[in-house]
Amino acid sequence: MIRIKKIDHVAVCVKDVDETIAKYKQVLGLEPTVRDVVAHMKTEAVLMPIGDSNIELISPTEGNEGLERFLEKRGPGLHHVAIEVEGIDEALSTLKSLGVALLDEKPRKGARGHKVAFLHPKATGGLLIELVEPDETHG
Amino acid sequence: MIRIKKIDHVAVCVKDVDETIAKYKQVLGLEPTVRDVVAHMKTEAVLMPIGDSNIELISPTEGNEGLERFLEKRGPGLHHVAIEVEGIDEALSTLKSLGVALLDEKPRKGARGHKVAFLHPKATGGLLIELVEPDETHG
Repeated sequence: MIRIKKIDHVAVCVKDVDETIAKYKQVLGLEPTVRDVVAHMKTEAVLMPIGDSNIELISPTEGNEGLERFLEKRGPGLHHVAIEVEGIDEALSTLKSLGVALLDEKPRKGARGHKVAFLHPKATGGLLIELVEPDETHG
Repeated sequence: MIRIKKIDHVAVCVKDVDETIAKYKQVLGLEPTVRDVVAHMKTEAVLMPIGDSNIELISPTEGNEGLERFLEKRGPGLHHVAIEVEGIDEALSTLKSLGVALLDEKPRKGARGHKVAFLHPKATGGLLIELVEPDETHG
């Protein structure tokens, strides 16, 4: 069984990051605490805390065909849910042994230097789930 | 300013509730704590806690054209994010006075007897947000 701590963030894919930050501030009073370009994922990410979770805005940088296609097809909207786990490597091994479809068999480095790995949406019947573990060794 | 407490739930619209519950249990070890048919919303809702938040499965019952259309157009997937607030009536008045587009100007009764109200997705540039406040008078 994988050890789940909480919903780390809910990710919303958007086209115009600055305009969207302004809307969330006006409507909900949210303030970004982190703004990060994750170069190897070709994604800009902005985190806005709510309780002990976050709304994350993600936006494609040059050449991110996946997120560009998402925006073209559906327009801005909910993209994935990230769940914080304890022991992401062990969690991925467990899921693999259960035959769960994974997009990442090994963690990659995501926003904030966290270790992240995506499950295939078919694992849950449609929801794209990211597992996240803060990397304690990350400065 | 509206008083935000936390992300109450992230809602995923699905076709087959039982099949999806089984998947979430197998993959993430989640267990439903609430299963509710909200008759006037023509929706079945299932809550599965993660940390102090929940994943909510929602599924259309007879005649729920909105969710039927969602499933036809996009297939099962993320539908909305619900944020718990303190003082939902006051929050709605504040948002209205700011000119924020609302789908509900007054709270309705949702799953668990909570008071709920939806903002128009254009308020945030694409994300459908539900405000939620537990109703203390609800048995």
